[in-house]
Amino acid sequence: MITPLRDRDTLDVEGLQRLVEHLIAGGVHGIFALGTTGEAPSLSHRLRQEVVRATLDFARRRVPVLVGITDTSFTESVELANLCATAGAAGVVTAPPYYFPAGQPELCEYLDDLAAELPLPLFLYNMPAMTKVSIELSTVQHAMRNPKVIGIKDSSGDMIHLHRLVELSRQRPDNWSVLIGPEELTAEAVLLGAHGGVNGGANVHPRLYVQLYKAATAGDLPRIRELQRQVLDLAGQLYTVGRHRSSLIKGVKCALNLLGICQDGMAEPFRSFREPERGIVRERLVRLGLLNPKA
Amino acid sequence: MITPLRDRDTLDVEGLQRLVEHLIAGGVHGIFALGTTGEAPSLSHRLRQEVVRATLDFARRRVPVLVGITDTSFTESVELANLCATAGAAGVVTAPPYYFPAGQPELCEYLDDLAAELPLPLFLYNMPAMTKVSIELSTVQHAMRNPKVIGIKDSSGDMIHLHRLVELSRQRPDNWSVLIGPEELTAEAVLLGAHGGVNGGANVHPRLYVQLYKAATAGDLPRIRELQRQVLDLAGQLYTVGRHRSSLIKGVKCALNLLGICQDGMAEPFRSFREPERGIVRERLVRLGLLNPKA
Amino acid sequence: MITPLRDRDTLDVEGLQRLVEHLIAGGVHGIFALGTTGEAPSLSHRLRQEVVRATLDFARRRVPVLVGITDTSFTESVELANLCATAGAAGVVTAPPYYFPAGQPELCEYLDDLAAELPLPLFLYNMPAMTKVSIELSTVQHAMRNPKVIGIKDSSGDMIHLHRLVELSRQRPDNWSVLIGPEELTAEAVLLGAHGGVNGGANVHPRLYVQLYKAATAGDLPRIRELQRQVLDLAGQLYTVGRHRSSLIKGVKCALNLLGICQDGMAEPFRSFREPERGIVRERLVRLGLLNPKA
Amino acid sequence: MITPLRDRDTLDVEGLQRLVEHLIAGGVHGIFALGTTGEAPSLSHRLRQEVVRATLDFARRRVPVLVGITDTSFTESVELANLCATAGAAGVVTAPPYYFPAGQPELCEYLDDLAAELPLPLFLYNMPAMTKVSIELSTVQHAMRNPKVIGIKDSSGDMIHLHRLVELSRQRPDNWSVLIGPEELTAEAVLLGAHGGVNGGANVHPRLYVQLYKAATAGDLPRIRELQRQVLDLAGQLYTVGRHRSSLIKGVKCALNLLGICQDGMAEPFRSFREPERGIVRERLVRLGLLNPKA
Repeated sequence: MITPLRDRDTLDVEGLQRLVEHLIAGGVHGIFALGTTGEAPSLSHRLRQEVVRATLDFARRRVPVLVGITDTSFTESVELANLCATAGAAGVVTAPPYYFPAGQPELCEYLDDLAAELPLPLFLYNMPAMTKVSIELSTVQHAMRNPKVIGIKDSSGDMIHLHRLVELSRQRPDNWSVLIGPEELTAEAVLLGAHGGVNGGANVHPRLYVQLYKAATAGDLPRIRELQRQVLDLAGQLYTVGRHRSSLIKGVKCALNLLGICQDGMAEPFRSFREPERGIVRERLVRLGLLNPKA
Repeated sequence: MITPLRDRDTLDVEGLQRLVEHLIAGGVHGIFALGTTGEAPSLSHRLRQEVVRATLDFARRRVPVLVGITDTSFTESVELANLCATAGAAGVVTAPPYYFPAGQPELCEYLDDLAAELPLPLFLYNMPAMTKVSIELSTVQHAMRNPKVIGIKDSSGDMIHLHRLVELSRQRPDNWSVLIGPEELTAEAVLLGAHGGVNGGANVHPRLYVQLYKAATAGDLPRIRELQRQVLDLAGQLYTVGRHRSSLIKGVKCALNLLGICQDGMAEPFRSFREPERGIVRERLVRLGLLNPKA
Repeated sequence: MITPLRDRDTLDVEGLQRLVEHLIAGGVHGIFALGTTGEAPSLSHRLRQEVVRATLDFARRRVPVLVGITDTSFTESVELANLCATAGAAGVVTAPPYYFPAGQPELCEYLDDLAAELPLPLFLYNMPAMTKVSIELSTVQHAMRNPKVIGIKDSSGDMIHLHRLVELSRQRPDNWSVLIGPEELTAEAVLLGAHGGVNGGANVHPRLYVQLYKAATAGDLPRIRELQRQVLDLAGQLYTVGRHRSSLIKGVKCALNLLGICQDGMAEPFRSFREPERGIVRERLVRLGLLNPKA
Repeated sequence: MITPLRDRDTLDVEGLQRLVEHLIAGGVHGIFALGTTGEAPSLSHRLRQEVVRATLDFARRRVPVLVGITDTSFTESVELANLCATAGAAGVVTAPPYYFPAGQPELCEYLDDLAAELPLPLFLYNMPAMTKVSIELSTVQHAMRNPKVIGIKDSSGDMIHLHRLVELSRQRPDNWSVLIGPEELTAEAVLLGAHGGVNGGANVHPRLYVQLYKAATAGDLPRIRELQRQVLDLAGQLYTVGRHRSSLIKGVKCALNLLGICQDGMAEPFRSFREPERGIVRERLVRLGLLNPKA
């Protein structure tokens, strides 16, 4: 879930409420707040806390809410996790600390220490493009011995790694979940044993991703191929407007704003799309059938 | 300057005081707190504030103190900068936000926005190994137009880039400073026009680096070559004990502990050296002539 | 197909013949000689020519043979392609020149120039781990305008890129082929529209990969999942014996030698497995059911 | 030394002769043919042989000639080295094979095997930007035990590595040479103990680099600083005209053509500058005082 912002360090509270309703109406099976698409590392700790409280408030336990506590500071991660527990989150999610690249044995120790302090179950989050270090298989295997660690979200884009994670997950008798980050890979991940997707595009069009997930669990190949093309089309249209790697989040936020759901403020170091990018996103939403051209 | 830690999230206050005295007695021309070697991103915001207050308190304006405010959150950077101003820092230092890699035009906007909010002069800090993005020449040129931006610390290790930065610095009539990060490169940087070094090894042996700097400004080549070999020797001995990239900070902290200056606690995701690494560092300090073998 | 070597710069001719028979008996739909797994860049030009002649001779047009002509020298690529045409190859395959990293517009020009000189249809080969540059979508789109360019083998491991290539392939009314390199990804690639796999493991166990391909074209999901696990198992066992990235080719060659098919000589800069690695490969072949423990 | 080309696979023989005279007249202490700037990997083996013969012929033993034999094929490297010996080269130079990235122990074995076959002394060539693997210190240390290996050219741009190489060179009682690749770093390298530079810009303006080398060996700091600025200026002007990483070689060849020394043909995958780039290079040569504006 993106974080709707009104201005610098200011949550768009009504926008967040509408977004939560939009997601739940779209059929999502859970919400992941304060992840990469949620710009969590760019938000002040005060604002992160506000997001946690408001999201859980608005979700009213209709779906489980996971919250990202990834931080370069162990202490800040634990503090946020404590708030998450109080506020009613189902679990917390952490990527490796993202300033100093830790070696895998160091990462194992870090995860041990962190899990010991957490009041909630922990999902690992593999995001090497941002954190510089991968959570390697040996580290996942280590972390799986801890019953508090209940799954992994893999955003590496490396499907061989994903398949190995699915193989590993069979070692845990309880439900150890492997979720895939990039939405273009959800279909094949679920077809070959992964348990779901945490896809940024679901902010804009949750039903599409829920349908894809359902088609994949049902093994309905013709439907999967049709929905997969829609997913590729949406990503190809909405995430490629700007020149920089920030284009994905900017595109999603701009689309949500054009759809009347929330403000499109971005946290520094980014700024939201203005014209002409905004006009391009509008056209593409129309082309995708998501916006009435007369709107 | 490293951050002496007693325990998780606990400053070694007496150690910090001894360290500040050790540095000033060694002749340093300034102190840079909360940089990479200071493990700043790994510290809680509360602890960072404590470090700022204590360092400035102990330094008693005998040397200027620069403080790193690098953060992925703009708001947290500004807040820390405000405290720095109150506490009496000479300036603040920022690397690019280190989770989302910004494009150079985005980085220019970010630096403009940040400088506008800062109560103190700003040093740029180029540290691509950690932040994933370089501050490219065009961005430095942009930032130099702002009189609040007064210099750059370059830790890229790319000496061609450093020489180009020195050339650029001539465009500012006031003293725009180019400082070099890696201590093995201080001699040549200063010989060819840079204004100084911000070297991690100076925590252990400040006088050596001050002497090297002085020899370089004096153009005393035989002395430079002699001191350069000592610098290479110290780095080769103290920073290569562990297997991971954290070995530098672990080595410096372990050495300072063995020298009786401060505790050697490390912030997560790292742990301080125990045996046998500690014994190796001890031996090497003896070999370097920095520790009495009978100590 | 690997290149069986007897000694430095010496083809194992009988081994090559046995290998070709092994592959065709296993049901492969084509043979790709002188690719990465064929160690082509490590072979002298004389030896590459010998491989081309012998392979085509042994294949006796039972299956089409594609030959890699990738080279840093344009002239050498064209010369080898001419020999391929004379010898009866179905097509040639080229990755980008792999010393100087070309920009995409430079790569477009290169491919135009090369295709103009070629006597045979051309397959592109995307192998960024070795060539440092990707063949980006825009370049593929450019190259597709040339009717002599008939497909691409993608070994990037990037499935989002693969799906985009499949989408692109619809723009060519004739059969423009998208083939996948890594064998762990063949199932999902073919399920979602790719036309086949060029998989190193098929040297050892061709039937497994043919069965997987057939299950994928048939959409037989239970069978796919079963075969996929076998593929992951084989790769996990045979490609992970040594410490270096050369382990895949060393493992395949060692296995083929233990199976009695060919010599396992490696071209410099690599050497074939000796004990204890050889013993480990033997054990694993037994465990995989590919070798009789009494053999 | 660049390789003057008239057309595809066609040496500009007269141009090469004029270039050799230009270099020797400029005072160079040696010539390095068939390196990166010589586009060696892009040339056919026939053409490489022609370059070796012609260069040695034109040099008439006035200066030592080193020849690059870097190749992905061991056999081709040895064959070219044999020709070099016959033709009168002083030594050969090799970077690691540049398709398959070798591990350091594999690289040690490769260098052992290669040196054993060579009829001439061997220089190592560290060029990780092209070869993907560095020649690490441990590998250099290994190779130094072989008396046939007589030095290293380091083009990594990593000055810490360079200083460590200089330290290592003291372990060999005979003259083990450390030469630096990037011309912007020659001054500091030589000041701190390296033995010379192998600089691409010396094709255009050999005297400048010879003067810089002499000033550095003499420790004449004011002169060094003056010449260093000229070197930075030349590089900044001539190597930045195009958009791609090929701009350096294209710029050098275009400049030599404008100076009337040789043709500026480039080997695939590159093409020589045409207008408007050619006009820009012309202007900059004038600005640098290397071309008469009325020429």
